[in-house]
Amino acid sequence: MTIHGYVFDAYGTLFDVHSVVDAGTAVTSDPTALSLLWRQKQLEYTWLRSLMGRYEDFWAVTEAALRYAVRRLEIRASEAQLRTLMDAYLHLACFPDVRSALTALRGPRAILSNGAPKMLEAAVRSSGLTPLLDHVISVDPVRTYKPAPAVYALGPERLGLPAAELLFVSSNAWDVAGAKSFGYRVAWCNRLGAPEEELGVRADYVVRTLAELPHP
Amino acid sequence: MTIHGYVFDAYGTLFDVHSVVDAGTAVTSDPTALSLLWRQKQLEYTWLRSLMGRYEDFWAVTEAALRYAVRRLEIRASEAQLRTLMDAYLHLACFPDVRSALTALRGPRAILSNGAPKMLEAAVRSSGLTPLLDHVISVDPVRTYKPAPAVYALGPERLGLPAAELLFVSSNAWDVAGAKSFGYRVAWCNRLGAPEEELGVRADYVVRTLAELPHP
Repeated sequence: MTIHGYVFDAYGTLFDVHSVVDAGTAVTSDPTALSLLWRQKQLEYTWLRSLMGRYEDFWAVTEAALRYAVRRLEIRASEAQLRTLMDAYLHLACFPDVRSALTALRGPRAILSNGAPKMLEAAVRSSGLTPLLDHVISVDPVRTYKPAPAVYALGPERLGLPAAELLFVSSNAWDVAGAKSFGYRVAWCNRLGAPEEELGVRADYVVRTLAELPHP
Repeated sequence: MTIHGYVFDAYGTLFDVHSVVDAGTAVTSDPTALSLLWRQKQLEYTWLRSLMGRYEDFWAVTEAALRYAVRRLEIRASEAQLRTLMDAYLHLACFPDVRSALTALRGPRAILSNGAPKMLEAAVRSSGLTPLLDHVISVDPVRTYKPAPAVYALGPERLGLPAAELLFVSSNAWDVAGAKSFGYRVAWCNRLGAPEEELGVRADYVVRTLAELPHP
């Protein structure tokens, strides 16, 4: 079946979350460790809060994860330094393959992301992607996080196309599983050569960069 | 309010999941790395499958997590060796403080665990805890995992006591948050001195071993 539209994950797929490492150099000699633990806890908290039925938006979850990571790694950071780290999330670098890949695609292009609306708006604007996107969709209205089906349902709703005619693109293997389980066609942009997850569903396409996305 | 009964998490609280490290020495020179990644993926898969609405029992999830961990760590293991590792989950060591702590408590004592019924039965029997427990409750009938409220509801249902009169005991900080959010009184048995999670709820008691549990 032909693909009639594209739905992209944001963090890790279009925007490089580990670009916050630069901001981390002010507080720790090992900013990579901070970045990795921050990201892992950020995801864990979205899953745990969704299951507990205690939604807080992604800005709050991201800050909570940062506070945990700093405490666990025994990093001394002032409130001002924590704010600087958080602000880095509003100005993430986008990966070098993003602009040309979005430009080349036919049909509507959307972001579907855990991010709070203000975070997505800031990241899209600061990376200059505004003219290349038709929709920027946040989970916020449904008050739960990926991989809940209620989140993935927002894509077909907003684009007015069935999930089976949309290509969902994510670099996060667990997000790939969630989107495929929901009913999208799915491309896993496996930037880092990560192993596949063992969640009982597989991507339709596996690519290393967005330049390799299928153009039907 | 007086505590009238006790509900214990199993894995990590009564049973030492990292005791599978011994079985790991046959396949890797770093069995601790295998044990840690196996455990982390096991939990992730319970959260992800619950959110996706794709429940599989804890035996299947544990095996999937093991296969992921082995692949990611580039460990060569035969099917027979993987079975040996899985079988270790049926004969986990219990922590040295468990028997005397359970013996000292007044009122009904239960396990409430992600474990599949056959896993819990085997672990309870092999560690000799059968006479010290009044209920062994698995999430399996509700087909979702902690920290979903439907799981925590099984405790009050089976014990016939309100959550506020039950002390929930777990070594897993995220499980502590889930139980507290549901309405139990909660003791965090922080065996390893881990930092508190940033999930917006706090344990009523923090102890280092089960010997320090409150006896009202």
